[in-house]
This record gives sequence, structure tokens and C-alpha cells, in this order.
Amino acid sequence: MVGSWWGRVDLYWTMPRHLLGLQGLARSELTRLLERTREMGVLLRRSDQNVTGQTTGQTTGQTMDQTTGRATGLLAGKVVANLFFEDSTRTRLSFTVAAKRLGAEVIDLLGSTSSVSKGETLIDTACNIEAMGVSALVVRARQSGAAALIASRVGIPVLNAGDGRHEHPTQGLLDTYTLAEAAKRLETFDLSGLRVAIVGDVAASRVARSAIAAMTTLGAEVLCIGPAGLAPKSLEALGCVVTSDLDAILPTLDAVMMLRIQFERHDGAKNPVAGAGAGVSANSVIASVREFRSLYALTAGRAERMKPGAVVMHPGPINRGIELDAEVADGPRSVILRQVTHGVAVRAAMLKDLIGA
Amino acid sequence: MVGSWWGRVDLYWTMPRHLLGLQGLARSELTRLLERTREMGVLLRRSDQNVTGQTTGQTTGQTMDQTTGRATGLLAGKVVANLFFEDSTRTRLSFTVAAKRLGAEVIDLLGSTSSVSKGETLIDTACNIEAMGVSALVVRARQSGAAALIASRVGIPVLNAGDGRHEHPTQGLLDTYTLAEAAKRLETFDLSGLRVAIVGDVAASRVARSAIAAMTTLGAEVLCIGPAGLAPKSLEALGCVVTSDLDAILPTLDAVMMLRIQFERHDGAKNPVAGAGAGVSANSVIASVREFRSLYALTAGRAERMKPGAVVMHPGPINRGIELDAEVADGPRSVILRQVTHGVAVRAAMLKDLIGA
Amino acid sequence: MVGSWWGRVDLYWTMPRHLLGLQGLARSELTRLLERTREMGVLLRRSDQNVTGQTTGQTTGQTMDQTTGRATGLLAGKVVANLFFEDSTRTRLSFTVAAKRLGAEVIDLLGSTSSVSKGETLIDTACNIEAMGVSALVVRARQSGAAALIASRVGIPVLNAGDGRHEHPTQGLLDTYTLAEAAKRLETFDLSGLRVAIVGDVAASRVARSAIAAMTTLGAEVLCIGPAGLAPKSLEALGCVVTSDLDAILPTLDAVMMLRIQFERHDGAKNPVAGAGAGVSANSVIASVREFRSLYALTAGRAERMKPGAVVMHPGPINRGIELDAEVADGPRSVILRQVTHGVAVRAAMLKDLIGA
Repeated sequence: MVGSWWGRVDLYWTMPRHLLGLQGLARSELTRLLERTREMGVLLRRSDQNVTGQTTGQTTGQTMDQTTGRATGLLAGKVVANLFFEDSTRTRLSFTVAAKRLGAEVIDLLGSTSSVSKGETLIDTACNIEAMGVSALVVRARQSGAAALIASRVGIPVLNAGDGRHEHPTQGLLDTYTLAEAAKRLETFDLSGLRVAIVGDVAASRVARSAIAAMTTLGAEVLCIGPAGLAPKSLEALGCVVTSDLDAILPTLDAVMMLRIQFERHDGAKNPVAGAGAGVSANSVIASVREFRSLYALTAGRAERMKPGAVVMHPGPINRGIELDAEVADGPRSVILRQVTHGVAVRAAMLKDLIGA
Repeated sequence: MVGSWWGRVDLYWTMPRHLLGLQGLARSELTRLLERTREMGVLLRRSDQNVTGQTTGQTTGQTMDQTTGRATGLLAGKVVANLFFEDSTRTRLSFTVAAKRLGAEVIDLLGSTSSVSKGETLIDTACNIEAMGVSALVVRARQSGAAALIASRVGIPVLNAGDGRHEHPTQGLLDTYTLAEAAKRLETFDLSGLRVAIVGDVAASRVARSAIAAMTTLGAEVLCIGPAGLAPKSLEALGCVVTSDLDAILPTLDAVMMLRIQFERHDGAKNPVAGAGAGVSANSVIASVREFRSLYALTAGRAERMKPGAVVMHPGPINRGIELDAEVADGPRSVILRQVTHGVAVRAAMLKDLIGA
Repeated sequence: MVGSWWGRVDLYWTMPRHLLGLQGLARSELTRLLERTREMGVLLRRSDQNVTGQTTGQTTGQTMDQTTGRATGLLAGKVVANLFFEDSTRTRLSFTVAAKRLGAEVIDLLGSTSSVSKGETLIDTACNIEAMGVSALVVRARQSGAAALIASRVGIPVLNAGDGRHEHPTQGLLDTYTLAEAAKRLETFDLSGLRVAIVGDVAASRVARSAIAAMTTLGAEVLCIGPAGLAPKSLEALGCVVTSDLDAILPTLDAVMMLRIQFERHDGAKNPVAGAGAGVSANSVIASVREFRSLYALTAGRAERMKPGAVVMHPGPINRGIELDAEVADGPRSVILRQVTHGVAVRAAMLKDLIGA
């Protein structure tokens, strides 16, 4: 099992704390992490702007950096290591920007799983990097539990940036933060009464697992929607409702989180994008992309039936024209770029909290 | 068409300004950009030296960083993103050094054109990176107009680091600056009376297009010299003179800018370096490398016929022994490494001007 | 021959100094370099800890950064370039962390030897990077003498990060520092009376050459142990003793430095790890891995016969189960991770000494 030291700060403050997953975290812990994210968002926006009197109504020309708050320099002199045994440019850049905007330095160690196929080597690498004097490890790996395994062997904080199908906690936090923002719940992070659907390839998704944990703990109702192969009933153990009828439920939703079909994580599945059009395979988790689209894609037509104010999310990268139409991704309901922005704030907040003095 | 906000600062100062190209810029605008480059060069040299009294005649041991001027820290807390859809280690490192010497952080997003073959994806990538809170995008792409396209969609400054055959404005500025330095025109940047030849593969060269625009606007006479396939008469629309007789003109020139033959940009052309010696192709823009060398290469012998003080430039990378002999590249007339040095100053100046408070 | 300016600081302080090798350095020079390493280690540990009264017995809550000493910022505004013509993630990251922890920025130029097969191109690259205004070059190459060649052509400090079979001076220094620490000789770096064995593939090892030079100059007795193909008698010219009987000598040793068999550096040798088990080759420097292990591997059983307090070193990466058993690598005698930690201190000390004001 993956443990977490979050929330046990007072007892164990001399030990390294980690961010390994959101499953099992108490509501108060999640709320605290989201509050830190909100505060960090304010700091980062201030640093962005070099705010002057002219644009803010202040009479001084001083930048905010020199007055009340500043993000720059919070982690000066610290080095954060990205250990990405599985590639992910997007997540890696988000952590990198987060660290650098706080003044930390970043080193990258990138490797395919093939070259670190044994758990031992993975630990070897982590111990070597730790011995160099870095302040935290951001770990991504194809194996569920990899970040926890490393955390059990090093004396510095480990941030899980995605481990197999298990968890992707910073993604779950940014999804939850974006939902709270859209629903105007940034003061309390109480998500009661909100109805969120996660649509598509839920079974293979660590993003879904982290989001379900955080959103349901904070009071939201989460539905997982997809064909049985992608959204099996067994997911209900996570605290969500599983159904296959998107059209019936769509008008009642406050948010829809669309997921990319992760062909690479399904044995026997064929990627119809890379392969021959609407590829059909006997073993496939979906019969065809055409059939998937007809029932589960968020097309422009379907998006029109969403209720006022309901928003569209996607963790990216988007397969435009498969699970999500381009005009929806770029349309007024889309909060997809807000997710990207909040991703940096979440990661900066976690880095500061775990590394900072 | 590619527009530029340069020179309209007073009117549009709240909008992001960009550096997309040099064509169409007024003389006053170009002069201002070169003045900024000169000032930045002074700051960077001071930071280099940690100047002490002993070497400068000052009596204090203070570094200049602590007194009048300093480059370090001008862009502290800012993040610059290199979006290089087409690879270029040299240009990317130059922008990177420029940003880092001002205290900015840099993230790299490198990708072959194949993976971002659609303009939409290029914009997607740029919007995602913008949403992370970076302060500027440095864009390189195989498609002419790519930087302008991105600039039309984001709210942060875009610097064109080369787009197809169109423009490479920071290279054009550094070439112009190096010419002005060699001709002792750094006070005014008035290039009247100077005669410059751009020799070789002008047709495929964005470097040439940017340099022609800047140098002619500032008063220089620019000649494009090469076989008709590489230096067609149509280039005269850019404000230069096209000719094919280098030997006749060489003794009258103040500067010769040699260009590499960009075999990869000519359909049907063969790279004789990679291929079979002096490769001949019916469709080829040049009959053979041997013939090209006999007429257009700046050999040691030819360089002796240049007038006193005339200089040799090359944007790099050099194909030594093809368009330029090694002893000329490394000889007393060469200002090629000055170009590299000024490249960092140009880029630092542009970044500071576009991002700085 | 590779020269070094170390120790001639007073005479030539206006010239760039380099760190090209340890062979030929005087005892006083080596001692000075190790003293700088020790001082840097203290600075880096202080920066790590943000020490507060609670954990140190001090009554103030100030971080050490704000009082007596700080590593951060020592090289602020400087840019260090890694020119790695031969890949080495480990050494590159160690230099990178060292530079970044002092506040310097780092740029990487990575290239296989194939693309820079001519010495001229190697110099071209170095000169271009120098012209960008970087403060030092860290050079790694497959050719012995590459760093010295570059040093002869540029006006900034060059640090040799490994050149062919010749030298790897920062590795030699960290090995020596680790030995001195284990033997409690950090005050004087006098290694008299210590007996060290370098076991395995000594012939191909630049690490061994640098370590032999430093350790013998400081008074240690160094033995090279391996089959004749890997540890030829000719090595005795370096000041060490060559033997082939590890078991006879093991109980007398204070430290054993195990080396990886560098199959890639032996013509005709086969890598039994990549190839077919215990590959036997007529031309091979070793008859078989099984035979090598029976005589030279530091197995768990063999390690038990080492004397109390004797330590095990390895420059990494380890081929666990070939030259070194996993339980020895991770066991109480192992100082392998101390080597990694000291590696950062050595490199930071050298960078500061060569670049710093």
C-alpha cells in the first residue's frame, strides 16, 4: 500500500514527507493542500505581473515582489530532480516550471522503463541522485507503487508524478482545484452537490483514480461513464457510480472530465489513430472508435445539451476528433488551459511545502 | 503577412510585443534595437569580468555588478520557453545563454515537425506552455509564418528564432551589428557607403532575408551572389542587387557573408558531403560542388584579393572546404566568433526589452 | 602531454587555469585541491539543512546561509557548459548539480563522437560555446588529450570530465577524498601507511590512472589487481604494484576500489552481459566472466575476509553480480554513495576555484 505522511506533520516533522497519492487522505488534509495551492496561485500571479501603480491602482511603482509576497527565491539554492522512468514532456515541464518559478534548480534524469526494468536499479538511481544533494525527487514510472518504493528508501521528499495505473496526485489536485474554481468553491473547497462525470478510459487512468479520491472526499458525486471494458463496475469500490449512458446523465452534470483512450495500456487494443482508421479487434476493449464516438465522445452537438455553467475538463493530451471535438476543447465551456495553469500552482505549492524551510 | 509591434510601443504597450521579422521595420526601429544590443553587450562584458581596479584603473575592488550596471538578475523569476519544432542546437543555446545570463530560467520543448505537422497542434503546444506561466516563447519551425501564427494566439511575447525560408530576425540583427562594429559605425548604425555581399545559397536562406532587410534599411548596399538557382533575380524585390560574378566584385566589398548550401531545403538537390563526392543531379540547383567552389567559395586565394579591413562573416555551421576555407574562417579577416558573441547580446537585449518590466 | 596550471596561480593568475589531470601534480597542489573540497563540503551541507537552533543547539532560528557561510550564489550569473562528446549521465549530472548549487547556470551540448570525429570540429564547437560568454567548459570525450587540446585553444577554464583512457581528475579526487575520510585523514590528507587495491579492468580505466596518481603522491600504496589482460605489468610505470592474487592481499587492504569491465573499450572483447552468458572469445582480455568472478569479484564471501574498517569503493555504474555483489555494494563497508556525495563537492570546489572571482 502507498502511505502518505501528509497531515502527520506535527508528529513526524523531522522525517521526509512525500506526496504519493490522494487515496486515503482525510478531507482536512485535502483542503489544506488546496489552500496551499490557492495561496501559491496568488504568489505566482504577482510575480507574473511586476504590478505597477498604473494597472493596480497603487501609487507606487514598486513590484509586488518587493513588498508583500513573492514566489521567486522561495526555494533558492535547492535542486529538484525529475526521475522520469516513463516519458511525459507535459508533466515534466509543469514540475520544472513550478520549481524554477520558486528559484529552485532542476535536473532531469530520463529513461525508458526498459533500461531500469528491475526495481533494484530504480532504487539505485534514486539513491545516487539523493547522494548528490538534491532536495526532492519527482518520480514517474510505469510500475504502480514505484514512487512509494523509492520513498521507502530515500531520506528526501518524493513526489509521485504518475505510477502505472495507480495515482497521479498532483493531477488529481489540479483537477479538483479547477472544479472548485468553476463552481466558485475556492473558499471552502466543499464540493457538496456537484456532479462530475469522468468519461472514457477510466480503467487505465491513474488520473481518474486520484481525481475520484479527492473529489468524493470533498463531497462531490463522481460518475464514471464508458463501455464496460473501459469503465467496469469494479470501479465503484473507489466511491464513484459507474454507468454507461452518457446522454441520459449529461444534462445533470456540473463538469465533464474527458479522458484519452490509452491504447498503450490495454493489451490487445489497437490504436485506431496510429493504425487503420476505426480498427476492430476481437480482444479490444472497444469495438471501434466510431462506436465509441457515437456514445461517449463530447461532440459539439452533445456539449450543447450541458447545463449552463457546466465545464469541460481534459488532462491532455487531447485526441481531437476522438473523445473531444476541437470546437468544444477551445469553446467557452472548456477549462482545459485553466487546468494547465493550476497544475503549476499545485506543483509549486507541494514543492514548497515539502522542501521549504 | 507577418506584422511586428516594434516601434508602436507607446500606443500598444499593454499588448504583448513580438519580434517576428525585420522586413518592414523603420530605420529608427532597427537603430533602437541595435542600440539596445550595444547596451546589453556592455552589461554582459561587465558581468563576465568581475572587474577589479587592477584591470580597469579603478581603485576599488568592487565588481561592476555591485555598482553601475549588471546583467544578472534583470529577468530573475522569469521563465523563457524554447519551442523548437525544428532542431537547432546553436540558436537554441544562444537564446538559452542570453536568458540565463539575465537570470531567467529556460525550458526546452523540442520536437520534429513530423509530430506537430498540423498548425493546430503547434498552437495547442504554444497555448499549453503559455498557460504554465512562462514569460516569452522563442519559436523555431520549418513553416514560414509559424512564429506569427503563434503570436496571433498567445498573450505573451513571441521571438521568431527562424521560420522556414522567411525570417531569422535575431540573426539578421547580429549580422548587422557585427558589420557595424567592423566598420566602426556602432555610434550611429548608419551603414551608408558600405558594400556587403551575401554569397551562396541565398534563395533558401531566412538569414539572408533578415540581413538584407536590416542592412539595406540602414543604408548599406547589399549584393546577392551565386548561381541563378541559388541567387535568382527575383531576390531583387528585397532591395538588393543580384549578380553571379563574385570575382569581379570581391575587391570592392567591405564584408562578405558566406552561406552554407542548405541541401535539405532544395528539392532534388543532393548533399555532396553526405553523398558521393561532387554529386551531379539533373534537377540540382548547382551542377556540382567543384563548380560551385570554383566560382563562389571564399578560398584562401580569393580572400587575398579582398580590400584592407574587409571582413568575412558566416552564420554557421560552416562546411569547411566547401563554401569557406578553414584558413579563412580562422584567419584575421574572420569576424565569425564576433557574430556568435553578438548573438547572445542581441537575444538578451530582445528578451529584456520584450519581457522586462 | 597534458599540462596543468594548477599550483602556478601566483605566476599566471591572469591566464585561464584548467583541471586536465592529476598525473604530475605536486603533493602540495593535491592537498590544496582536497582542502578546497573539504571546505566546499561544509558549505554545501549548510545550504542543505537551513539549520535552525532546534537541530543544532544554536539559539537563533537563522539559517546558516545568512550567517557565516553559503554555497548558493557563489557563482551567480555564471554559465558553465557541459561539452559531452561522449555520453555520461552520471558525471554530467554531478557537474550540473555542483554548478547549480553554487548558483551557476548550466548548458548542455551533447554529441556522439561520430558527429565530431575530427579534432577540428571539436575545437570549433568549443570556440563557439566560448564566444557565447560561458565561464567554463566541462569536457568529456573519447579521445585521450581532448580536454587539453581544447584548453590550448580557448581563453576560459577547461575541466576534464574524462578523456579516453587518460584521466578523469575529478573522479580521482573524489576517490582520494573518500579514502581519506574513511581513514580519518581529512585534516592532513596524508595517506601514508594505507594500502589500496584497484581491482579489475585497470588497463582501460582513466579513473584508475587519476586515482593512482593522487593516492600514491599522497603516500598511499596502490596495488592494481586483475588478470594480465586487464592489469598488465606496464601499469607499474604509474607508481603502483601490479599483481594477480587478490585473495592473498585482500586481508591487508584498507580499501578496495572495484572497477567495471569496460567491454566497450577492449577490441575483441565480448560483453557477456549483453551477449551469450559467459561469452568466451579467443581475443578476449578475460577468458570468461565466471573465471573472472572466481578470482576477482568482490563477493559477499570475499568481503568477509577484509580487515575491520576496510572499505569498498566503486566509481559506478556497478554491474551487480559481476565485479561486485549487491549485498557488498549496499553493505556496511560500502562507501559508494559517499563517493557520489563527495563528487559534487569536488566539482563545486573546482568550479569555484577556477571561475570564482
